[in-house]
Amino acid sequence: MIVKMSKQNPEVLAALEALVAPVGGEVRQLSFPFGTFLVALGLENPSLKKIQAMDGVLWARAAGSKPVLAALEQNPERTTVALGRMEVGGEALAVMAGPCSVEDRDQIFTAARFVAAFGATALRGGAYKPRTSPYAFQGLGQPGVELLREAADAANLPVVTEVMEPNDVATMAPFVDCFQIGARNMSNAPLLKAVGRAGKPVLLKRGPSATLAEFVLAAEYILLEGNAQVILCERGIRTYETATRNTLDLNAVPVLKGMTHLPVVVDPSHGTGRREAVIPMSRAAVAAGADGIVVEVHPDPSRARSDGDQSLHLPEFRRLMEDLKPVAEAVGRRLDIPETLPFAANQVPLIRRSAGWGGSR
Amino acid sequence: MIVKMSKQNPEVLAALEALVAPVGGEVRQLSFPFGTFLVALGLENPSLKKIQAMDGVLWARAAGSKPVLAALEQNPERTTVALGRMEVGGEALAVMAGPCSVEDRDQIFTAARFVAAFGATALRGGAYKPRTSPYAFQGLGQPGVELLREAADAANLPVVTEVMEPNDVATMAPFVDCFQIGARNMSNAPLLKAVGRAGKPVLLKRGPSATLAEFVLAAEYILLEGNAQVILCERGIRTYETATRNTLDLNAVPVLKGMTHLPVVVDPSHGTGRREAVIPMSRAAVAAGADGIVVEVHPDPSRARSDGDQSLHLPEFRRLMEDLKPVAEAVGRRLDIPETLPFAANQVPLIRRSAGWGGSR
Amino acid sequence: MIVKMSKQNPEVLAALEALVAPVGGEVRQLSFPFGTFLVALGLENPSLKKIQAMDGVLWARAAGSKPVLAALEQNPERTTVALGRMEVGGEALAVMAGPCSVEDRDQIFTAARFVAAFGATALRGGAYKPRTSPYAFQGLGQPGVELLREAADAANLPVVTEVMEPNDVATMAPFVDCFQIGARNMSNAPLLKAVGRAGKPVLLKRGPSATLAEFVLAAEYILLEGNAQVILCERGIRTYETATRNTLDLNAVPVLKGMTHLPVVVDPSHGTGRREAVIPMSRAAVAAGADGIVVEVHPDPSRARSDGDQSLHLPEFRRLMEDLKPVAEAVGRRLDIPETLPFAANQVPLIRRSAGWGGSR
Amino acid sequence: MIVKMSKQNPEVLAALEALVAPVGGEVRQLSFPFGTFLVALGLENPSLKKIQAMDGVLWARAAGSKPVLAALEQNPERTTVALGRMEVGGEALAVMAGPCSVEDRDQIFTAARFVAAFGATALRGGAYKPRTSPYAFQGLGQPGVELLREAADAANLPVVTEVMEPNDVATMAPFVDCFQIGARNMSNAPLLKAVGRAGKPVLLKRGPSATLAEFVLAAEYILLEGNAQVILCERGIRTYETATRNTLDLNAVPVLKGMTHLPVVVDPSHGTGRREAVIPMSRAAVAAGADGIVVEVHPDPSRARSDGDQSLHLPEFRRLMEDLKPVAEAVGRRLDIPETLPFAANQVPLIRRSAGWGGSR
Repeated sequence: MIVKMSKQNPEVLAALEALVAPVGGEVRQLSFPFGTFLVALGLENPSLKKIQAMDGVLWARAAGSKPVLAALEQNPERTTVALGRMEVGGEALAVMAGPCSVEDRDQIFTAARFVAAFGATALRGGAYKPRTSPYAFQGLGQPGVELLREAADAANLPVVTEVMEPNDVATMAPFVDCFQIGARNMSNAPLLKAVGRAGKPVLLKRGPSATLAEFVLAAEYILLEGNAQVILCERGIRTYETATRNTLDLNAVPVLKGMTHLPVVVDPSHGTGRREAVIPMSRAAVAAGADGIVVEVHPDPSRARSDGDQSLHLPEFRRLMEDLKPVAEAVGRRLDIPETLPFAANQVPLIRRSAGWGGSR
Repeated sequence: MIVKMSKQNPEVLAALEALVAPVGGEVRQLSFPFGTFLVALGLENPSLKKIQAMDGVLWARAAGSKPVLAALEQNPERTTVALGRMEVGGEALAVMAGPCSVEDRDQIFTAARFVAAFGATALRGGAYKPRTSPYAFQGLGQPGVELLREAADAANLPVVTEVMEPNDVATMAPFVDCFQIGARNMSNAPLLKAVGRAGKPVLLKRGPSATLAEFVLAAEYILLEGNAQVILCERGIRTYETATRNTLDLNAVPVLKGMTHLPVVVDPSHGTGRREAVIPMSRAAVAAGADGIVVEVHPDPSRARSDGDQSLHLPEFRRLMEDLKPVAEAVGRRLDIPETLPFAANQVPLIRRSAGWGGSR
Repeated sequence: MIVKMSKQNPEVLAALEALVAPVGGEVRQLSFPFGTFLVALGLENPSLKKIQAMDGVLWARAAGSKPVLAALEQNPERTTVALGRMEVGGEALAVMAGPCSVEDRDQIFTAARFVAAFGATALRGGAYKPRTSPYAFQGLGQPGVELLREAADAANLPVVTEVMEPNDVATMAPFVDCFQIGARNMSNAPLLKAVGRAGKPVLLKRGPSATLAEFVLAAEYILLEGNAQVILCERGIRTYETATRNTLDLNAVPVLKGMTHLPVVVDPSHGTGRREAVIPMSRAAVAAGADGIVVEVHPDPSRARSDGDQSLHLPEFRRLMEDLKPVAEAVGRRLDIPETLPFAANQVPLIRRSAGWGGSR
Repeated sequence: MIVKMSKQNPEVLAALEALVAPVGGEVRQLSFPFGTFLVALGLENPSLKKIQAMDGVLWARAAGSKPVLAALEQNPERTTVALGRMEVGGEALAVMAGPCSVEDRDQIFTAARFVAAFGATALRGGAYKPRTSPYAFQGLGQPGVELLREAADAANLPVVTEVMEPNDVATMAPFVDCFQIGARNMSNAPLLKAVGRAGKPVLLKRGPSATLAEFVLAAEYILLEGNAQVILCERGIRTYETATRNTLDLNAVPVLKGMTHLPVVVDPSHGTGRREAVIPMSRAAVAAGADGIVVEVHPDPSRARSDGDQSLHLPEFRRLMEDLKPVAEAVGRRLDIPETLPFAANQVPLIRRSAGWGGSR
């Protein structure tokens, strides 16, 4: 049962605890900017009438197979998530950029410095890497996390990085601004709970065969730990198409916006798997209404230890930002690009569009 | 074997005919704006050397499982298709709008008049309707085609409509500017050949489970009849997701642009199946680099005999065009909207954006 | 509206015709072994009461998005389809075997002779071939159909072959015992209607992205022409899995058996695309309750002009039949294999199982 | 680098350790019934020549994106996994049966007693339940594991149950005979490693959108911990089809048998989601060559707290076993059903087949 409170009333808490006690359930008090809730877990088909009649209760309802806390109706004003100098979900677009994996000091410092110079709002990079083959590069682990932190600090950016198991959350937390839950772990309830409790922003990626309804329910697991700082990330779904690594489902953007108050960003790197499609699909994501993008950028993609084919070169990232800005403005958003570069312009030349109109042809 | 000619040489034709005669093959001469080709069909593993050495032969190659005539390399300048007052694939965007089905005179004339007033470049509407159930409305047939023609003429728009069987091509041709091949018929070779021979533009929709490689090969069937006026239409693919009717695969836009010289448009109506997603996904399509959109608009969607849930109301179509224009410009394209309405503005009021920025939230 | 009659009553027909006249609809009288029906097409939300009350009317109902004539409830005894010496859907299993394409006289006569000797119940082979690439072998056309007929006659087997367009039905009909509708044409309504009218058995293949509900509705198109001799064929659906050409959906067998009275067969050749999986999946199909299989067999698969990778060699077909027989009996079915071979056994030796138990390991 | 040894040679180990030391890699010694291996992790493009030349080295090869230890070529005799009184992968079929969730003492003891009486070889039941909604029943947790153990002991069956996070492995291990990795966790590397180290059999379920190649690589993670007691379980993949909960991919059985030496079982309950399809698809699985089935059985499915729609009633489980036995024998396998029931037969009557032949129609 979920109860929305208009004011504190310890009697409601007591009443709920009396209800769950016999079934070994649990009551949680959750305070969000959009309201205070009491959630009684473990009840099946609870009787709501008595609770509904209590003082301070706005409403009480049974919780079942649909999200409640993450549902749009709980916060029609929409949630924004503070990350570094910006609010994800606000007018300005979030651009989380960086290499797939943290590989070495030089690589990550170079990446951080340049993406910051071109307007990225967060540095992303993997230290714990979920890989299909146990023989593939598994990431640098905790030293990689710390290297990422150093590089981000030098560039004045917040850090977004993936966590793969509950046990790592506490160790990583001091170095991380936003925990990423990778696509393969979208349904990993213990991990969702652990990052929920960490009290930091979470970038939750959609599972490769998750429906949008399941996606929002995964976010609900995090909110149920009292953490509403969740950013949803569409990153492509698995279909029969082989021309691309995944099928980027941009329908997800308007549909999620109609389902939930959480911000929605898009990862065109995993969503296409092809470097040349990243810029057009970033533009498309923003035009569809996304609150930002997550994009892989590497100083030398040909030598990347993972995902080189989909990583942008530094000049391509610069071109991406230049191209994205007018699209953002066309849909009433903002993309802030520093006016001056902190290095000679010819270090990362502005490449020309690949053809005709907006690089699209 | 496909042979590209730099000039006429009847001896090459004779040589090819000599090759195919023993196997009952066939030689075709095809002239496109981007070159003249001789295609010898029916040869397996032909020896190319002798032909390659002949006068007037630019190159000769075996044709197999990949497109040749539709491949980008044949026309890096890209093909444009004349349709009404515009060139699909040029700087201006194509907007093919109208109801799913032609239902009656009043409906189609109203639709035609208003979509023209707001800037549509073609009138679409179905008279022959492929339906899953034999008990569903199957369209008005040939009288519907003629009604569509009349309505389009009144609005000064070209007509795009679906043809379902080879036998109908000749009957429909005098009334149609562009034949649509529906998604279910993308692989219907006899139909592709028939519209290819009709010598009119073809709007070819991607099959719901067709790969992009298969899609371009379907177009190749049409080009092989000497007709390169083919517009490819991404309209969503079938996936496990149930929140939308189809998964609109906008990756298709940049990937197709890298494969073929043919123009690419997007159908956000079938690609989403949900009216509220049509505007954001139209913006996304254009931002991804599409050459236009195909969109369902109905004077009264609640009474539509097919696809009402995904059809825009007239004011929504007006809003779509207003929203699309700055996105088009942001990617270096153009959307021409008439400056004055031929009726009182309050007949079709400009509805406000659904929220915040560009209607995306 | 669909009306089931318990006896003839011309007044019901007249009443229905009066109803459809104003909307340009149509009334059909359909007689099947499981009942006589009047179907009035073109009515939306018809009033049923008056018709229900007429003499000879068992029931009248509105027809919409669900199959009626093909639904199991119309014939719980289930339909069998006479094909050659057997009834498809009866106790004995159907085995439709032969090459993907008819290639030449020697190939098809060899195939026919041997598959007959090992117990096939029909000869299959393609003369009109739907191919993804226009440069691929398109089949021998009508001469191929006639060659197939000759070979089948020599082997005393009925002929199953694909028809691709309505115009070919009449030309092919004298040579064909069962028309196949290929997977790509499952939703081709004009073609479904044309084979429905031809009054011959139809082997209807499931489209590669068709749901089972859509599959039965495609059959309903054929029944609505008065032809209930429809055999449904599961042949694999398109999924993300690349280890196999398609994903054979054997769930379809019990689910279809719960939806429709039509017989259901399975094509493990297209359903797997891999020769080594054909025998195990044929056993699985029969164990799931299929009424037979459709399988590609070629005298020399390495030289096949299409689908060689999934075609069985002749000794493998013999092994298939030997392996299938005990499985058939285990589920209460019968597989009839001639006791003596009409040629020396060493011409087509019985190969040993690939391993251990039933070739499955 | 992976090295197969023909005998012990500490110098090889030393040489590998010298190679990995500079890159912070690791060397593992793994002994399986099918050979002893040294695996050096962390090397990219290692030079193999020196190692290959050393005494005791059968071969050395680089490991990359393909399975090595789990590959069929390492053990063409195939691996069997001891579970209770049987060897999974041997001649006798494994039948792991029981409720989706352990709910209470009476439910699990009843289920255990009856499934044992009808021939089940292991008791399955969930105590830690991965659920889409955080408000759904999450299982009894550790008390459920212990209850399951008690019920299994009373019925003389081994226990198979799911583990959801690495931290639970040690707590659960004393009560569990075989750890199940659920479909959502197939790619959860930390969890795979943890169960690998536990040294108990593992039932690894295929992820709902995992390719077979990825599935075997997930098993490789477990083998790389020195544990080859892995049973692969096909349980249906996610497709567009909505008539069933998942699409059971029985192609997986022969294809996996050609890729790996590990035993393969099939879960027709999750693979169909529909009770009436469980018996036919169990038969199909065995006919395809599966080494057993995993099936949900509940004393009262209508009151099940999860997955009631796909759980068999007790008499249906009895019918399943009766139906499966002749199919097993038809493919050279064995299904052992106790000859006498330890209770009055009318407590769980043998229900008749649903129709005609083998219940398939």
